[in-house]
Amino acid sequence: MTLTTLKQRSLLGLKDLSKDEIVSLLDRAAHWEAQPVKVNPVLQGKFVANMFFENSTRTRFSFEVAEKRLGTEVLNFSAAVSSVQKGESIYDTVRTLESMGIDAGVIRLKPIGVLADLATRIKVPLINAGDGNNEHPTQALLDIYTMRKQFGELKGLTVAIIGDILHSRVARSNLWALQKLGVNVRFCAPPNMVATELDAAYISIEEALKADVIMMLRVQLERHENGMIKSAEEYREQYGLTVERAKRIAPHAIIMHPAPINRNVEIDDELVEHPQSRIFPQMENGVPVRMAVIERALG
Amino acid sequence: MTLTTLKQRSLLGLKDLSKDEIVSLLDRAAHWEAQPVKVNPVLQGKFVANMFFENSTRTRFSFEVAEKRLGTEVLNFSAAVSSVQKGESIYDTVRTLESMGIDAGVIRLKPIGVLADLATRIKVPLINAGDGNNEHPTQALLDIYTMRKQFGELKGLTVAIIGDILHSRVARSNLWALQKLGVNVRFCAPPNMVATELDAAYISIEEALKADVIMMLRVQLERHENGMIKSAEEYREQYGLTVERAKRIAPHAIIMHPAPINRNVEIDDELVEHPQSRIFPQMENGVPVRMAVIERALG
Amino acid sequence: MTLTTLKQRSLLGLKDLSKDEIVSLLDRAAHWEAQPVKVNPVLQGKFVANMFFENSTRTRFSFEVAEKRLGTEVLNFSAAVSSVQKGESIYDTVRTLESMGIDAGVIRLKPIGVLADLATRIKVPLINAGDGNNEHPTQALLDIYTMRKQFGELKGLTVAIIGDILHSRVARSNLWALQKLGVNVRFCAPPNMVATELDAAYISIEEALKADVIMMLRVQLERHENGMIKSAEEYREQYGLTVERAKRIAPHAIIMHPAPINRNVEIDDELVEHPQSRIFPQMENGVPVRMAVIERALG
Repeated sequence: MTLTTLKQRSLLGLKDLSKDEIVSLLDRAAHWEAQPVKVNPVLQGKFVANMFFENSTRTRFSFEVAEKRLGTEVLNFSAAVSSVQKGESIYDTVRTLESMGIDAGVIRLKPIGVLADLATRIKVPLINAGDGNNEHPTQALLDIYTMRKQFGELKGLTVAIIGDILHSRVARSNLWALQKLGVNVRFCAPPNMVATELDAAYISIEEALKADVIMMLRVQLERHENGMIKSAEEYREQYGLTVERAKRIAPHAIIMHPAPINRNVEIDDELVEHPQSRIFPQMENGVPVRMAVIERALG
Repeated sequence: MTLTTLKQRSLLGLKDLSKDEIVSLLDRAAHWEAQPVKVNPVLQGKFVANMFFENSTRTRFSFEVAEKRLGTEVLNFSAAVSSVQKGESIYDTVRTLESMGIDAGVIRLKPIGVLADLATRIKVPLINAGDGNNEHPTQALLDIYTMRKQFGELKGLTVAIIGDILHSRVARSNLWALQKLGVNVRFCAPPNMVATELDAAYISIEEALKADVIMMLRVQLERHENGMIKSAEEYREQYGLTVERAKRIAPHAIIMHPAPINRNVEIDDELVEHPQSRIFPQMENGVPVRMAVIERALG
Repeated sequence: MTLTTLKQRSLLGLKDLSKDEIVSLLDRAAHWEAQPVKVNPVLQGKFVANMFFENSTRTRFSFEVAEKRLGTEVLNFSAAVSSVQKGESIYDTVRTLESMGIDAGVIRLKPIGVLADLATRIKVPLINAGDGNNEHPTQALLDIYTMRKQFGELKGLTVAIIGDILHSRVARSNLWALQKLGVNVRFCAPPNMVATELDAAYISIEEALKADVIMMLRVQLERHENGMIKSAEEYREQYGLTVERAKRIAPHAIIMHPAPINRNVEIDDELVEHPQSRIFPQMENGVPVRMAVIERALG
């Protein structure tokens, strides 16, 4: 296998993926979603390692279900690693599992730049399951898959992403992929959660409520000790999707959130399973999307 | 599937299960125990999630073996959750795994009332693997299965359950099921471990030794800071099954314990594998019993 | 199955294994390494429990891959147990899993003498995955397999094992097995890390560099509070395989390490993937070697 092929089989981010490649993954996800049988062991005999150097429940299980539905053997490694820890210890673990014969690795990690470095040193395809503040491509793919199921055509839609843009890999992966697909991406964030290097306009929460897709992000207030927002209550009041605000969204609009949710902070409890919410359907869509990504890595 | 059917496929407790349903599960367990081959993949392609919000080794592995012997795919989730934690975070996890396509969930949790609430909100069958101080139906089923293997007919037997009745879900599930089967259940407990709302007579330890089944419960003295019993030694002396006391049990009687055992507290070390002890056979019987329960949930 | 047969199927150590048995395991590992297909489910329907009472990443995954390549069902138990904890709690866990129907157990534990005791009380074959300071037979087997791949004939080779011999189960298993195969084993260690009861000569680090195999051990300086070596820097300077020292090893010599590596303590960063290093190939070889060991246990 040439290096080019390997690069084509890894999924490190959506920034460098072409529009055609994105659409092809979404189409393949639709193929898997349409299967009448849950397990289609087309990848039987392959080994995939889920290597989570940062805590996760939902993403790890979503990958595990996707892998098992394709018939692969699954190895689960998890060990929270501090964000300052040397990349070398992560490399040693990944290289160890590679030596033991895995065919692909799904990886989540915190330290900046380590995944890009690993991709040049590890020979098996790597799938990014969350890379610091950089990218979370399978989350954005499932988000976009969910939008496509809802709206059919994505071109011309407006997606408002609300919350801690600065620290959000979900916002970045969505931004880069959605723009390739002709979607207007708008951000809405408290001043101390703005990412100025990203190419999207910031709008007010009132303006954001007019979008076709209202995507709330998880906020971690403990990250913002010197922030202007002092409490969960204050955040909810200024940036949360409250029951009151939800009354003003368009009847065709949908509410999204990558989860896990801080109920009554980013979004009111009553809205989580609102008819216009797609939060649990997003999780449902994550499985066929990840099947497509794993199939591409191992196919 | 109608709600009635779902309710029939979930196993939340034995209090609401009919005698016929209990007997039918025991018969099916006997069927599975009699299989010459360990793995019978009749549920291949199904996904079961073991969701343990409270620590467990033995129960979780027993379910995992049962699931794998039936050919299901297994997802293991564990995260100890404090007893005061809001039920909503448990709901979000269970709902997440449901969204990912599990066919049934095995669940252990501490907070009172959360399982009953989940059962009304989650669409896949749920199997109770330990619900606070309420019920632990598969433990009681395996206990009763063990008694039936020993005595054949259960009607008219006397079972003495000794220890912390107040906090015991094992005692409750056994009580409610055994009474339906015509068994005389007697409790024996220190005054501060008595559950007055339960319909069974309390007897002395000397009286308890005359029963056909002597079932010791695990005691957690740290739960009883203001208790009348100050130490493990004192507990053993007053309520433990000591070597000396064991000499007085009937030759046909059996000793049981749900495990894990506090050796030399509830039961003396030398008695754990005594010829009349069924402690490890109980664990053995747990696997076919849980196969029957899972088959019922998914069949 | 007679007790003799069981003993022949367990692998507690290499000290009591004959030369023929060792060679036969190495030959069978070569058979498995040569298979064109990764998964050969010859042990389908069997259950193996990996019971790690001491932390491990690499050894546990190596066993898990080996087990899955042979088609077994895998149960993973891990719970770090303090070295002073009573053997009885370990026994109860192993006996519990045995009761649930496992066909073999892979076990790592710290307390001295507990594994030998377990082997007399547990009926299923046990495979030692690290037993205190005593033996780590599968590690030594994979080390020897790696040497045999390199040199063909082992007789007459010189292997220098450098580091904390006193606490090393890897050194002991290698010593006992290599001597049976006619290899000259030499130790090199700081005075406070010497094991005087072992039958091998101690040599200087300069002398050790002349060996055919230079095997570095992981050092845990925190174990040696009153040691003569105060720091990682000092250890590296006196006993580490530095880039400078590596220049003096023979062109045909190989560098080994059981991992995990303390980079720049036992071995310089630049040497880990040096052309003469076999550190990652050792991990690769661990899988077929463990397949041979598991097959012998269950075959």
